[in-house]
Amino acid sequence: MHKKAKDLSLNLKTHIEHFTNPLYLESGRIIEPYDIAYETYGTLNEDKSNVILICHALTGSHHAAGYYEGDRKAGWWDDLIGSAKAIDTDKFFVICTNTIGSCFGSTGPMSPRLPSTEPYRYKFPVITIKDMIKAQRILLDRLGIHSLHAIVGGSMGGMQALQFAITYPTFAKKVISLASTHATTPWAIAFNKISQEAILKDPDFKDGYYESEDIKANGLVGMAVGRMAGHISFLSPDSMIAKFGREYRATDGLYELFGKFSIETYLEYNGHNFVKWFDPLSYLYIMKTINIFDLSRGFDSLDEALDKLRCELHLISFKSDILFRPQEMQTIANTLKTIGYSDYTYTMVDSDYGHDAFLVEVSKFDGQIREILEG
Amino acid sequence: MHKKAKDLSLNLKTHIEHFTNPLYLESGRIIEPYDIAYETYGTLNEDKSNVILICHALTGSHHAAGYYEGDRKAGWWDDLIGSAKAIDTDKFFVICTNTIGSCFGSTGPMSPRLPSTEPYRYKFPVITIKDMIKAQRILLDRLGIHSLHAIVGGSMGGMQALQFAITYPTFAKKVISLASTHATTPWAIAFNKISQEAILKDPDFKDGYYESEDIKANGLVGMAVGRMAGHISFLSPDSMIAKFGREYRATDGLYELFGKFSIETYLEYNGHNFVKWFDPLSYLYIMKTINIFDLSRGFDSLDEALDKLRCELHLISFKSDILFRPQEMQTIANTLKTIGYSDYTYTMVDSDYGHDAFLVEVSKFDGQIREILEG
Repeated sequence: MHKKAKDLSLNLKTHIEHFTNPLYLESGRIIEPYDIAYETYGTLNEDKSNVILICHALTGSHHAAGYYEGDRKAGWWDDLIGSAKAIDTDKFFVICTNTIGSCFGSTGPMSPRLPSTEPYRYKFPVITIKDMIKAQRILLDRLGIHSLHAIVGGSMGGMQALQFAITYPTFAKKVISLASTHATTPWAIAFNKISQEAILKDPDFKDGYYESEDIKANGLVGMAVGRMAGHISFLSPDSMIAKFGREYRATDGLYELFGKFSIETYLEYNGHNFVKWFDPLSYLYIMKTINIFDLSRGFDSLDEALDKLRCELHLISFKSDILFRPQEMQTIANTLKTIGYSDYTYTMVDSDYGHDAFLVEVSKFDGQIREILEG
Repeated sequence: MHKKAKDLSLNLKTHIEHFTNPLYLESGRIIEPYDIAYETYGTLNEDKSNVILICHALTGSHHAAGYYEGDRKAGWWDDLIGSAKAIDTDKFFVICTNTIGSCFGSTGPMSPRLPSTEPYRYKFPVITIKDMIKAQRILLDRLGIHSLHAIVGGSMGGMQALQFAITYPTFAKKVISLASTHATTPWAIAFNKISQEAILKDPDFKDGYYESEDIKANGLVGMAVGRMAGHISFLSPDSMIAKFGREYRATDGLYELFGKFSIETYLEYNGHNFVKWFDPLSYLYIMKTINIFDLSRGFDSLDEALDKLRCELHLISFKSDILFRPQEMQTIANTLKTIGYSDYTYTMVDSDYGHDAFLVEVSKFDGQIREILEG
């Protein structure tokens, strides 16, 4: 990765919008009241025709681009979003919201269950992808935005993009879904299961009754272990070979039981770092959201669901993605072909980087994104 | 799987052989004294020319075939070994030993560190594949067996088979290595890492100072979580789709946070069942053995290592094995071709069952095994 100067020109600010009407959920339950946190980049044009909604993944946030004063790291899709970048903030008004259920300002399981000051914890309802996009739609309404130029999202963000296209068919002109699927496979559910079990079995989790303060310093160790499993699923056998090989830490003897290979250090670092900034209950809830995602729920078939489409749909998969495999996106494309819907493209990006490619190999697909958005 | 009658004709008995001379290890350390547990099937012929050594995988044991009185489950390779089966106990004298470091009778980390009655625990030395086969060779010597008709092993057993062929080139006539590799990849190491971390972080593990009695009833929960990750690596995305799909437990509401998909129930069952019969320290040690396996260690290259071969070598991989992928076995085959060694075969079995195929889809390769052994 090239070293870049920190661009503070986006003038970042986290906005939090408060809603007092109930949010009616797919489960039949409600959340009331609720907050949605979001960031925007660029300028809304007069006829509000230049809005792009960005949807984040499992552990992402509304902070998709730019730096806050003092930040060492930019937003998670900073390579893609900014002045003169593929999602060009000189042309578009870009908005990214923190999903309901997450832990960066939008209402989630650790938010107070008003009028109590106690968090919801397990009383928080299960959230679906459809609920997430409903909340986003309500926020956009509040902002006076009644149509979108485009929606772009990867992984769980790609699920939201797809669901948006089905649920609100004419709301967005163009929808781009990356590294995603039409229905989460048992393979992906299995990886989430490791995280769930590792969290639940950690005594410091206290069956959901932990205090955030108590686990703040080091995070929840169980979640770190689970996250390490997650990181396996984000990579691929080949990307691991390319990145780490069988490199062994020079300071460790080969015959030390706890001597470490580089891949082990990588997993440890990422696992233990993650738990310092993500809430365990939010993690459980959002994994559930992903597990139960199925674009065809409420329809008789995927065909019938996709028959709702009225937008330009762009599907982008990554060759070595083992979490949401190319064939899952290919299934959507094949189904579209079968039902005679022609306003779509399907591309498989040649990458050895696994699922993470949608975050770290932006240079392999940003040209395509620009073309779609400006074409 | 077909229902079969329990064949008790093998007259199983666990033999334990005691050795008082030190076992000199690759690390430079020794184990002294030590035991090796083993089982045999069939009858040794007069000139001792009908011996087949079976090598087990990470959590296997010397109990490879048949039933003990009252057993519900047969030995782990019972589909392959027995009267009139591919490894035909009417013709061959089959022997399987519990590897050094394991927990089924051979000396391992929970064995007493004589003259103390206290277990070795972390004082147990790290064991390599080469150490494992050295111990097997010593046992065979004790039994008066100075050559083998064949060695057959899968996964870590396949590593032992390969190492045997390199270290004792003329000891076995035929060597069959299944679902294995020449050097463990970071991908496989990463899965082991999850188990290691999950064990170490479990307070009941007590930094290795647990008492077996204390964790006997339910096993070590942390190890169960780690084993679930292992079970992901033993399957494949496609085998999971075929076996579980998105089936959801009928009793669970879709919007219950802890409602379960079938794949989750499968992982839970296998994880929690496993820890009732396997020792956590043995697990840590044997994972280490696997992680540091590299057939070319001590040589300048894999070419040079394989140049030691003097036996018939048969490499069998499984198409959907993501733990030890076909291309890893293919690399061995390619190297043999390069160095002009022709006494080998390489076969990739067409299976969607992932790594587990070497245990559960025996019918797909037992014909080939029979042909090799009897040809």
